[in-house]
Amino acid sequence: MTEQTLSLDEALALSLNVLERNGFSPEHAGAIARNIWKGQRDECHSHGLYRLLVCTHTLKSGKVSPDALPEVHDAAPGLVRVDAKGAYSLLSFETGLPILAEKARKQGIAALAINHCYHFSALWPEVEAIAAQGLVGLALTPSHSWVAPFGGTKGVFGTNPLAFAWPRPGQNPFVFDFATSAAARGEIELHRRAGKVIPEGWAVDTEGHPTTDPTEAMNGAMLTFGGHKGSALSAMIELMAGPLIGDLLSLESQAFDKGAGATPYHGELVIAIDPQVFMGPSADLHSARAEKLFEAIVDQGARLPSQRRYEARARSEASGTVSIPKQLYRDIIALLD
Amino acid sequence: MTEQTLSLDEALALSLNVLERNGFSPEHAGAIARNIWKGQRDECHSHGLYRLLVCTHTLKSGKVSPDALPEVHDAAPGLVRVDAKGAYSLLSFETGLPILAEKARKQGIAALAINHCYHFSALWPEVEAIAAQGLVGLALTPSHSWVAPFGGTKGVFGTNPLAFAWPRPGQNPFVFDFATSAAARGEIELHRRAGKVIPEGWAVDTEGHPTTDPTEAMNGAMLTFGGHKGSALSAMIELMAGPLIGDLLSLESQAFDKGAGATPYHGELVIAIDPQVFMGPSADLHSARAEKLFEAIVDQGARLPSQRRYEARARSEASGTVSIPKQLYRDIIALLD
Repeated sequence: MTEQTLSLDEALALSLNVLERNGFSPEHAGAIARNIWKGQRDECHSHGLYRLLVCTHTLKSGKVSPDALPEVHDAAPGLVRVDAKGAYSLLSFETGLPILAEKARKQGIAALAINHCYHFSALWPEVEAIAAQGLVGLALTPSHSWVAPFGGTKGVFGTNPLAFAWPRPGQNPFVFDFATSAAARGEIELHRRAGKVIPEGWAVDTEGHPTTDPTEAMNGAMLTFGGHKGSALSAMIELMAGPLIGDLLSLESQAFDKGAGATPYHGELVIAIDPQVFMGPSADLHSARAEKLFEAIVDQGARLPSQRRYEARARSEASGTVSIPKQLYRDIIALLD
Repeated sequence: MTEQTLSLDEALALSLNVLERNGFSPEHAGAIARNIWKGQRDECHSHGLYRLLVCTHTLKSGKVSPDALPEVHDAAPGLVRVDAKGAYSLLSFETGLPILAEKARKQGIAALAINHCYHFSALWPEVEAIAAQGLVGLALTPSHSWVAPFGGTKGVFGTNPLAFAWPRPGQNPFVFDFATSAAARGEIELHRRAGKVIPEGWAVDTEGHPTTDPTEAMNGAMLTFGGHKGSALSAMIELMAGPLIGDLLSLESQAFDKGAGATPYHGELVIAIDPQVFMGPSADLHSARAEKLFEAIVDQGARLPSQRRYEARARSEASGTVSIPKQLYRDIIALLD
């Protein structure tokens, strides 16, 4: 028995407990715990309870605010800005979401800009929360400048994820959340630890030559997915979730870090669209036509994105439990001392 | 001398003349001619004067309206809808642009939905026109269902282009415009005509097996760029520029075509964001920080997207001329008879 099984309720309570005991305010502990818990439930282990170790460790480094309350600015009819004031992004998202949703319903389309936040979390829980309101959601962030532009050899872009959710009546939304880098930085790190080579196309070494050595890749630069197109998309994310919202580029986030290797500090852009407004009076009909797209994909044996995650969620909900490695469990429990 | 050289003014006048002589109303002829002329000026030959042959041929097939005036609906504070009423999309874009810009300035973010249009044109002239107003622009459309989803074998998605523009004070905007298919359909056709094989990864045959034969590719299905990520992005474009705006999926556009092989008939979604609103009082500073991103790309010898196009534009503007093959020129002139 190398796994520790926890009920879903225990996993959430433990997360909350650890975060509060280690200095986070109840508001921040709640927002972070819910996000981490969702990751564990969906078996996204790198965004699951493991993150408790990272969050508490980062807090001790003294950079992240444990308790800053998000400051909301109603910047324009279609824009709400939430200043995280140097705390993690998640409480700012939870604070901004109802305002974003109200604006989207009224304007048709609206944006939430989260500023001055530390960011470690996957974006799919956020776009799913938007879809749960019956809205279409998009979320994007920079990170640190680990990724070279197409044709280049030096890191400029972050791993710059893009997440999208489309609400589907009576079932899980259509959701994707992908890094615009060819691979996640964590995947390269996992290859390094396992002593494995990485696939070609993931990275270049410090000289700009293609490499399959994970250590050389971490010291060199990662590459974007999809050649010049992925590179262009990554630049768009960098611009929209950086200077457009008055926040840092991945290059600037990296410089701000001063080599500490801490969680990136920057902004996040979230966009919500109300399909009831955009589709007009025949919204039900158009929503049903969207289902034809999903059918045409699955009927030929292809998978929708997030399918594996939804299957994991169904398993966790059916058993009412999640499992984590015993050693990880012991490390988490030690944080309660 | 196999090329015919025309002054920039002659090229525009000839385009207008051909379109009007072949039945387009002056309004539609103007919008189409300006778009085609920009393509030729930037040496995008497949979207240049060559399109005069296609547009007039398509008009003769009786599907496209030569003169329907776009109908504007102010659908919401953040959404203007323009019904093209079965005409080409371009006049609807020109009609909707000032309203979109006004809404973006007022709301911060706004959208233009073009409905019921025939669509043949590149999206970069449209996002460039948005950037010329000092706004950030995004444009997306479906097409015909030529492209298989990742892991599938049958066409579901269109070539689903995504275009983006970021205004840069005093110089050409940062612009990209790419198909989410691995290659443009026209590129496969060009390989077929030239008797060349296509690269692996572009397409599968009717059985779903990878193929490098352009004819098998045209009969089978094209693939998206960037594997499952490109496929997810293509699905997003399909949803947002299809059902979300109450218009057709690529599958439905294909069905509507009934095998005629005509220009796709569907909608287009355009989004504009006002950086003055989003960046706030320090807009100039944030705009200058965006330039640091571009510098970090070009300083390492990588290229910005659209660079080749801007170089072509500079050549055309310096010489005051464009050149097209003599045979194409003769074919165009014949349309004046």
